[in-house]
Amino acid sequence: MNIIEIIEKKKRKEALSEAEIAYFINGICDGTVADYQASALLMAICLNGMNAEETAVLTDKMAHSGDMLDISALSPTADKHSTGGVGDKTSLIVAPIAAACGVNIAKMSGRGLGHTGGTIDKLESIPGFQTELSDTAFFEQVERIGIAIVAQSKNLVPADKILYALRDVTATVNSLPLIASSIMSKKLAAGADIIELDVKTGSGAFMKTKEDAMALAKAMVNIGKANGKKTAALITDMDTPLGANIGNSLEINEVIAVLRGEGPDDLKKICLALAANIIFMAKNCTKEAAQDLAAAALANGEAYKKLKEMVAAQGGDVRFIENPALFPQTAYTIDVCAPRSGYIAEMNAEAIGMTAAMLGAGRVKKEDSIDMSAGIVLHAKTGEYVKEGTPLATLYTNRENIKTTACKQFLHALTFSDTAPQPHALIMGEVI
Amino acid sequence: MNIIEIIEKKKRKEALSEAEIAYFINGICDGTVADYQASALLMAICLNGMNAEETAVLTDKMAHSGDMLDISALSPTADKHSTGGVGDKTSLIVAPIAAACGVNIAKMSGRGLGHTGGTIDKLESIPGFQTELSDTAFFEQVERIGIAIVAQSKNLVPADKILYALRDVTATVNSLPLIASSIMSKKLAAGADIIELDVKTGSGAFMKTKEDAMALAKAMVNIGKANGKKTAALITDMDTPLGANIGNSLEINEVIAVLRGEGPDDLKKICLALAANIIFMAKNCTKEAAQDLAAAALANGEAYKKLKEMVAAQGGDVRFIENPALFPQTAYTIDVCAPRSGYIAEMNAEAIGMTAAMLGAGRVKKEDSIDMSAGIVLHAKTGEYVKEGTPLATLYTNRENIKTTACKQFLHALTFSDTAPQPHALIMGEVI
Repeated sequence: MNIIEIIEKKKRKEALSEAEIAYFINGICDGTVADYQASALLMAICLNGMNAEETAVLTDKMAHSGDMLDISALSPTADKHSTGGVGDKTSLIVAPIAAACGVNIAKMSGRGLGHTGGTIDKLESIPGFQTELSDTAFFEQVERIGIAIVAQSKNLVPADKILYALRDVTATVNSLPLIASSIMSKKLAAGADIIELDVKTGSGAFMKTKEDAMALAKAMVNIGKANGKKTAALITDMDTPLGANIGNSLEINEVIAVLRGEGPDDLKKICLALAANIIFMAKNCTKEAAQDLAAAALANGEAYKKLKEMVAAQGGDVRFIENPALFPQTAYTIDVCAPRSGYIAEMNAEAIGMTAAMLGAGRVKKEDSIDMSAGIVLHAKTGEYVKEGTPLATLYTNRENIKTTACKQFLHALTFSDTAPQPHALIMGEVI
Repeated sequence: MNIIEIIEKKKRKEALSEAEIAYFINGICDGTVADYQASALLMAICLNGMNAEETAVLTDKMAHSGDMLDISALSPTADKHSTGGVGDKTSLIVAPIAAACGVNIAKMSGRGLGHTGGTIDKLESIPGFQTELSDTAFFEQVERIGIAIVAQSKNLVPADKILYALRDVTATVNSLPLIASSIMSKKLAAGADIIELDVKTGSGAFMKTKEDAMALAKAMVNIGKANGKKTAALITDMDTPLGANIGNSLEINEVIAVLRGEGPDDLKKICLALAANIIFMAKNCTKEAAQDLAAAALANGEAYKKLKEMVAAQGGDVRFIENPALFPQTAYTIDVCAPRSGYIAEMNAEAIGMTAAMLGAGRVKKEDSIDMSAGIVLHAKTGEYVKEGTPLATLYTNRENIKTTACKQFLHALTFSDTAPQPHALIMGEVI
């Protein structure tokens, strides 16, 4: 077997065998396949595709290129992944709900490069919260309280790091099998029995159309099932930011609000749907029973209690959860008011995310530090009627002299109209 | 402009602009485009193609990546290129015919990697023949006698060397625009006014089907014309070896025979057609007049005289041309006889070429030395009826103990049948 024949085969649009895919992945890891050969094969995959079987095998071989977490002793365990969006804090709500319903959450999360930090950054906005636990402490915590969320410390999926770096500079990012295998290889390596996916679509998402999002969801669910995982996906709207709060400690505030039975309906609805899917897969009950369990865990405060237990177990100051007003405030708060009366016809989620980053909430480079308290709270969202001069949002920042630019950029993301826009479905599809 | 956007554009099957193609070619030469980016673009070109305009521009930019020979003072000048085959010694017959008809041949040729050497290797089988001339000597010789064939010494088309090395290890060799631009960039850099192409098709050729050969011929003629060159192509048969002799000095023998009015008809016919095309393009006469001029130059001995003039001018021993029996003989001559009576239904040219290489006539690696006297003389060819035991070919070699293997491999290339096979057209098409 040699890599030239493998590339040639994919160039002819033929399916690669398990041995050929293994040869490729081993080769990029041990250097016997050169990067210029890998990029030629990646381009051939971009243009000629991979069938479901090839994609599942590719994902498995990628997953096995590094450490594979064995959390089988904690079964049933669930993991959740979102393809990412603006204001997306669902993991921190879904995980406590699922844990409250008896599904163990032993989760490794990442930091974010983007508009705001990732789940780990958000958790670190809680004073004292430790995201690095020893293996023993991690296992013991999940056994005791059913939930732990820690920063990724293992050598998970080195093949993905190599491929991703190469795809980024060779215009081969945009490929369904490559995107799906990149995400799912990390989920397989992370070891949970159940994988719930939230594939976002719209202006603030990687997948701009519902069709693309549905195709990605199907590909990922196929991969999960082919590799022995219970896997499901929701396709959810990311044309407008999710919830009202964007920014690290601001999002923790909103997580707390939802878990206390408050908070915005859109966020609550998506979180309950995601949690219900996890419970459904874990318990082999009916969908309705799973939905009832999720709703009950939220309504009776058990999910909120789980969040507090996790924060306490990981050294966080629980007083901040009980009284979010304790979170540090930014030096500046800026109200952005409606420049005209009318309906909000569109809110470009990506542009709003970029405003949050400008305020200090996100990282552009890996080394950048995040301002935990910076961000945006939306007071009105797509479809609402606003009167000229009413506040649309409050911007929080510690940066001086950016008021004018930030307001301008925020408003640039909005479109107004005299008639109410067509309402958007929040949950646009499901693959289960 | 950046290379990722350029790759992305070709990935979307869009045409690249002149500036984008120039950026790519400059980038591979100065290192600003990484090899893994180049290979991704090459694969995208393989799969999504290039239109005629892009291909012409690519060829021009490649040609200008190194030295451009200026032989305009010698106008009209002609160059000839064959895509290569077994027993293909046409350049050494066509060039003297064209020169005898007043078309200057100032040609740089290559050495060969393959079944036998290239034109330069074959010329070097003539004792004393110098293939390295100074620029001044090269020009003076063409001015004086109208013909010089020298080894490529300049830095011609470095971009092609880079791309070719990369294509070879990334399964991106097989692409019409890349093959056509690779060949034609070297022809453009070589500076002749007229380019005559011999695109071979069949078992011993790179292009296995007539359709592929015709497509390559069209692409190359388009490139030549788009870059201001008079260009034409013949599509000729390479299902069976051309002529009877395969091997370096053996082929020189056959060249001499044809130029003396002897030699096999197939070889003579193709050489006259190629030479007539060159004369037609140089003189703006009718096709018939050009054919008559070529035939006359062969018949009246002027072309033979030209070969001798060139050999003499470049220091070769003309006695070997006048008396080819002087060429050194191999230690062993092996007659291969017909294992049965019947028609020769097929002769796999590639397999016969590999037999010649096994006898010592060719190079496998660049550093290998060639045995100038080794090779094969065919006594019967496709379509002929042979009786069991009659000699089909004589194998010439200095290698010991390969008689059994070489005979076996030679016979393996042949298929016999009881009925006469369909006759093959020798010249299968023309692009002019």
